[in-house]
Amino acid sequence: MGINMSIIITAAETAVWLKERDGFLILTHRRPDGDTSGCAGALAQALREIGKTAYILNNPEITPRYLRFIEDYIAPDGYSPRYIISVDTASTELFPVNGKEYGSSISLCIDHHPSNTYYAEYTCLDESSAACGEILYNILIAMSGKVSAISAGHLYAAVSTDTGCFAFGNTTADTLRVAAELIDAGAPNKELNKLLFRTKTRSRIKIEAMINAGLEYYYDGVVDISTITRDMVEAAEADEDDLDDIAAIPGSVYGVGIGITIRELGSKDECKGSVRTTTIYNAYEIAKHFGGGGHRMAAGFSVSQPVSEIKKELLKVLEGVFS
Amino acid sequence: MGINMSIIITAAETAVWLKERDGFLILTHRRPDGDTSGCAGALAQALREIGKTAYILNNPEITPRYLRFIEDYIAPDGYSPRYIISVDTASTELFPVNGKEYGSSISLCIDHHPSNTYYAEYTCLDESSAACGEILYNILIAMSGKVSAISAGHLYAAVSTDTGCFAFGNTTADTLRVAAELIDAGAPNKELNKLLFRTKTRSRIKIEAMINAGLEYYYDGVVDISTITRDMVEAAEADEDDLDDIAAIPGSVYGVGIGITIRELGSKDECKGSVRTTTIYNAYEIAKHFGGGGHRMAAGFSVSQPVSEIKKELLKVLEGVFS
Repeated sequence: MGINMSIIITAAETAVWLKERDGFLILTHRRPDGDTSGCAGALAQALREIGKTAYILNNPEITPRYLRFIEDYIAPDGYSPRYIISVDTASTELFPVNGKEYGSSISLCIDHHPSNTYYAEYTCLDESSAACGEILYNILIAMSGKVSAISAGHLYAAVSTDTGCFAFGNTTADTLRVAAELIDAGAPNKELNKLLFRTKTRSRIKIEAMINAGLEYYYDGVVDISTITRDMVEAAEADEDDLDDIAAIPGSVYGVGIGITIRELGSKDECKGSVRTTTIYNAYEIAKHFGGGGHRMAAGFSVSQPVSEIKKELLKVLEGVFS
Repeated sequence: MGINMSIIITAAETAVWLKERDGFLILTHRRPDGDTSGCAGALAQALREIGKTAYILNNPEITPRYLRFIEDYIAPDGYSPRYIISVDTASTELFPVNGKEYGSSISLCIDHHPSNTYYAEYTCLDESSAACGEILYNILIAMSGKVSAISAGHLYAAVSTDTGCFAFGNTTADTLRVAAELIDAGAPNKELNKLLFRTKTRSRIKIEAMINAGLEYYYDGVVDISTITRDMVEAAEADEDDLDDIAAIPGSVYGVGIGITIRELGSKDECKGSVRTTTIYNAYEIAKHFGGGGHRMAAGFSVSQPVSEIKKELLKVLEGVFS
């Protein structure tokens, strides 16, 4: 255990910090999403626009869905940065494999997670932002007075994906105002929405059909359990992009208070459980029975048991919830 | 044919018009959606807040999904209004059965459809608004200087549903700004989003599973056809709410340029076809072959043929498109 000492700076101070320096490398987090990719792309783009040298460290886990936001800025081999910046990354453990080496030398962290460990020399954190993209927007405006159309597109991807296209509970009035400004700045919201929210791959369509057909309901439909086997994933030819947020499905059924997903991982006896609940039920209490963790409305666990046994045990745990 | 003479008024003028009068009945359109229901509810609520008598004509086609926005304002039997107002309704043919009698005596029409026929004595129309709810917002602000939390909730439903939670191509920066103001005014966006966009009925889940499992792909996946039989609808116990926007499914598959839905109606030989295309293909040209109509990217047709025959004919038409 150690105490992390980090200098907390505002978006305006971050803009000054960036303008005074040069030679940047931007890090995204592992299992990169739209927020980390979009923020990295927008920051690299904006820094280049004011004449700076800025690259993004390639993320080996980037999927085609989000690659477009960082691909123009990937650092070439041998690039030696002077300042390392992380975006949307709460702790150094969340860097991808090739980012671990930078863990102790992050100059600036821009983030919105309350769980941030203040691992960087400077930290620009706003927990009230639904997406890190909102903070980046304020930084870019403070830095250049405007956001270019390219940066605006990247930031629109960041803000919209982290809020489920403004449908998640984290969406605030400010989120929508930032998105409005980004559209005015030239973000192609129509095309991005189609790509990010209104298009599914054939594999996604197939796996959803299997999941939906296989949902099992208990307690008058207050509980449902979805099972995703390796065979299903193989039959649908689904990759991790196709399975994005797949654990939200059982909880999205009308009347369901506890939606559970059990997914077989690499081996049939390695399973991941996800529990999503409405405000009435405690997802964490259920996940805890399996040694898992999380929050009141979203929790998870990993166990080395076949699906059938997990389901049996789950039903016992649920008996306790409903007794 | 006759020439419709209507006095065009702005949102500010509409606010004055409303303040100077009393005794209102508000009409919604048939197959009521969130925009017409939300606008009607918000207008009735706001008029009552400034001491006016305002009711909404019951809509026999209202579904449970949207009933909540109008139920507190349904006109009692025998109510005699002095002024009839329609919201989100382009022509008098679009009134529900019980609204037809008012067709020639609409005092004010508030709408955003370019196809509006100017059937009302006064018309407040803004074609640039993605939702009629955006116009209502401007009217209520002009009328009272603010929007109450209840009106804000109704208007949030109007604006968000007509833009697919801000994901459709009609969404503008102004749409997002109005939504931001509504959240600030107290619209429960989190609860409404969950209800309107993030919850599906068990029947919807079932029918989607069947549709998704049955999608047929042609021309290297550029075309797909979905078939919705009466048996499927019965097996899923799906009602019209459950089938809302169901024709969007085939077009939502990655790579699809022409997504077609064929649905059996009351009788097996009465079918409805829906064609959705990307910008490259012309949906209207395909629907025209079956005597249908519509737009370049969304068109439809009705035919008295069994599904199998329609499909055969469709494939011939598609041969023409891809030859």
